[in-house]
Amino acid sequence: MKNTRILFEEYNDKIITAIEATYFIKDKMTVGTSGFTKAGDSKAVLPAFAKQAKYKNIGITLITGASLGHTTDTDLAANGALYRRMPFQADPVLRSKINNGEIMFIDQHLSETVELLNNKHLPKLDLAIIEASAIDENGNIIPTTSIGNSANFAKLADKIIIEINTSVPLDFKGIHDIFIPSPYPNRTIIPITKPNERAGIEYIEVDPKKVIGIVYTKLPDSPAAVTTCDEKTTAIANHLIRFFEKEVQQGKLTNSLMPLQAGIGKVANAVLSGFKKSNFKNLTMYSEVLQDSTFELIDAGVMNFASASSLTVSKKWYEQLYNNFDKYKNKIMLRPQNISNAPEVIRRLGVIAINTAIEFDIYGNVNSTHIGGNKMMNGIGGSGDFARNAYLSIFVTQSASKDENSISHVVPMVSHTDHTEHDVDILVTDQGLADLRGLAPRERAKVIIDNCVHPDYKEAMNSYFERACERGGHTPILQEEAFSWHIQYKKDGTMKQCCTAEIV
Amino acid sequence: MKNTRILFEEYNDKIITAIEATYFIKDKMTVGTSGFTKAGDSKAVLPAFAKQAKYKNIGITLITGASLGHTTDTDLAANGALYRRMPFQADPVLRSKINNGEIMFIDQHLSETVELLNNKHLPKLDLAIIEASAIDENGNIIPTTSIGNSANFAKLADKIIIEINTSVPLDFKGIHDIFIPSPYPNRTIIPITKPNERAGIEYIEVDPKKVIGIVYTKLPDSPAAVTTCDEKTTAIANHLIRFFEKEVQQGKLTNSLMPLQAGIGKVANAVLSGFKKSNFKNLTMYSEVLQDSTFELIDAGVMNFASASSLTVSKKWYEQLYNNFDKYKNKIMLRPQNISNAPEVIRRLGVIAINTAIEFDIYGNVNSTHIGGNKMMNGIGGSGDFARNAYLSIFVTQSASKDENSISHVVPMVSHTDHTEHDVDILVTDQGLADLRGLAPRERAKVIIDNCVHPDYKEAMNSYFERACERGGHTPILQEEAFSWHIQYKKDGTMKQCCTAEIV
Repeated sequence: MKNTRILFEEYNDKIITAIEATYFIKDKMTVGTSGFTKAGDSKAVLPAFAKQAKYKNIGITLITGASLGHTTDTDLAANGALYRRMPFQADPVLRSKINNGEIMFIDQHLSETVELLNNKHLPKLDLAIIEASAIDENGNIIPTTSIGNSANFAKLADKIIIEINTSVPLDFKGIHDIFIPSPYPNRTIIPITKPNERAGIEYIEVDPKKVIGIVYTKLPDSPAAVTTCDEKTTAIANHLIRFFEKEVQQGKLTNSLMPLQAGIGKVANAVLSGFKKSNFKNLTMYSEVLQDSTFELIDAGVMNFASASSLTVSKKWYEQLYNNFDKYKNKIMLRPQNISNAPEVIRRLGVIAINTAIEFDIYGNVNSTHIGGNKMMNGIGGSGDFARNAYLSIFVTQSASKDENSISHVVPMVSHTDHTEHDVDILVTDQGLADLRGLAPRERAKVIIDNCVHPDYKEAMNSYFERACERGGHTPILQEEAFSWHIQYKKDGTMKQCCTAEIV
Repeated sequence: MKNTRILFEEYNDKIITAIEATYFIKDKMTVGTSGFTKAGDSKAVLPAFAKQAKYKNIGITLITGASLGHTTDTDLAANGALYRRMPFQADPVLRSKINNGEIMFIDQHLSETVELLNNKHLPKLDLAIIEASAIDENGNIIPTTSIGNSANFAKLADKIIIEINTSVPLDFKGIHDIFIPSPYPNRTIIPITKPNERAGIEYIEVDPKKVIGIVYTKLPDSPAAVTTCDEKTTAIANHLIRFFEKEVQQGKLTNSLMPLQAGIGKVANAVLSGFKKSNFKNLTMYSEVLQDSTFELIDAGVMNFASASSLTVSKKWYEQLYNNFDKYKNKIMLRPQNISNAPEVIRRLGVIAINTAIEFDIYGNVNSTHIGGNKMMNGIGGSGDFARNAYLSIFVTQSASKDENSISHVVPMVSHTDHTEHDVDILVTDQGLADLRGLAPRERAKVIIDNCVHPDYKEAMNSYFERACERGGHTPILQEEAFSWHIQYKKDGTMKQCCTAEIV
């Protein structure tokens, strides 16, 4: 078994246990690990370290690609193993420690973490822990289901620990495209002009002298939950499909659209699934994550090619993929996240970006990260990389949620701004679609209120907007009332009947 | 005179007066004109149209590069000649019409206007009006002091009017670099890997069939005001120079730094002037606008090359440049604003971006556009293009202003968000410099309060932050108090003594 996975002989005497590997992790180290939306994460060393940290009373700065799978972030956070964490997470226990100020979380555009490391804006990486399916004849890593920041971590870290995951088939290769631009001041062009264009090599280059341990594991990736479309997500998807159809009719787009990016989650999945029953053909993706819907579209003959930084699918689709890899091998590509999310490539390809908002306001500002303005949910992820540079920047959310629609997801002013009015073209809720292109703030407000606001909140929102307009300004607001809906919710558990100044 | 300026014979019978040219402008047309930060604007046709519009009762959608010179925007706005205006302005009368809702203003990232036109997100251009110093043998335009969106307007508009400005010397050429990427879906790479690299041709290509009129003018550009450093701008410049020196000492930068971008205004000018007395050498710029300070640095032997989209200098420097053009010709280049501000190039070159904020908050969010949250000042300009993609994103402002420092420019929460916490590395006021790299929101707040807040506001800000922390969250805020400083200012004319919940 060992020999088929490690073709570089010198590594054979570096094989250690996960527990032994943890001895290399010292207090206050900066550690970079593989893992992007649960895919390709460290499944042996980080979990083992989490258990030990509690007794050893040590912690680290942990930098990943994005979120980790299994309960690794929970275990690290619960055991006090994290001083600092970046650039993204989606873990309930870690989240609560971030929100009570115990763990310092740095929420970053996913394209930028590597930039910050290269530019020495962040501390030097002491150690990289990277999952591999195998090691080639020269000691290089054949990655698994994500690239994330792994290739750059391997380059930048002083030391490297490799986790060989035997649950990933040995033939799961050839889909990785590792391109690392040369450093400043002679930074290279990223030579990608089509979603299916290869820019680099199929493996992660490793300096064998830096490898201090190789650990075996056989734990598969945490599968993504199977998402089913409900009434609201279907309504959102239908609004969007109709919009695309209209753009094609008007000659603005062809029925191949432009390369698609879709955020994680059930709304994005519903939208992609909506394409199955449409007249769109020869679709492509240039995205962060490939989900079930991508492969359903490939199977349906609607999607030709999909590029991303990770592959996060349900159990059924992992099996399907691993057992029929030849069928999909030439239709997908995984790249470093500073390439999948590169502003340069996103604008050059003209990506249609579809991301989920927590809430948006009547001027088109979007909150992607904070609940109630102060509590971090997951992080901005790549939504900013895509929204700023997209051919079309689309944000979707439900118009209202909770019992009796007590939360309106369209508000007078977002409680935290992640995407400004300048970066948002189209907003969609289950109620309808607001096309903001070429509109001034006062015009946007009308279109958003008319099309996106839940009926229970329309009167209140119109009242707010009208009273704000009386006060004037390019972007009319009532500062004393801008957050009154949020404040009301915290007080009474509902945003309703809250639009008069008196309640503040 | 005419023959030396127009080398394409067919145009000779197209020469008309400015008044005659205005007959081509019909009600509700979309018109694109040259002009970027007052440089290279339409000085004959637009002003003549402004005067007529009042009597004819007609108006247009006006799209420019950026702000116009002279009183053109004033005249257009005052005479009701504008229904819609984008992507930037800096005119007092236009501003007031925007803020009272009479004129719809669409505030855009300066790199994006051409994208929106190409993608048909904006209406088709009926007419382009472009200033030229001369016309070549094939009917193409030799531009003057700015490129802005002119080259793309010439390509996209149905009809073209050319204004030949005889105040610009005939030999003022060879510094223009016109590169237009091919359209989607085969968009080309922007082949710029150094600030001084030429990507395109020296003139604006024109289809002679589209040219409907040629107008002569001899009015020079509105000169930029001469800015002198005062105590505050000097303090800001010194903080920043010391920061750069430290970065060099730590080996993060060389003493050539990285290509510089500096926004318009006296603070940016003071910072650039600060380099004259420093040890930095072989500096370059990849910016939007070249100002007096750029040329002073070239003269001082400190700056090697400067690329931008326009050249906006004081009267003295226009004369100096026009009379000694050979001295500067090989040291400057003007490009279309979607190239000077291209995310692709800015990130590839690793630009150090220095822009001015109206205000920023304790978490690093920046307001670049709105006074008091609702009133538009000028627009976001290119600050977003640069800040998002820069090697270092720096924002500067004075800590407090007005009599008795009644306005604090550091606030609990910005009243409008143009740049989010994710896009800001360094904040500087006359008080000091806050280095936010790698810091979580709670850490940023401490660094900003300690270094940037005016002493008169420190206690109040610490009180706000401490009470917000008690409430918890990744980004602690008090929603009912977040805008209390702004509200207090509107009520009492000062932000002071305003940090308790009672006053809201």
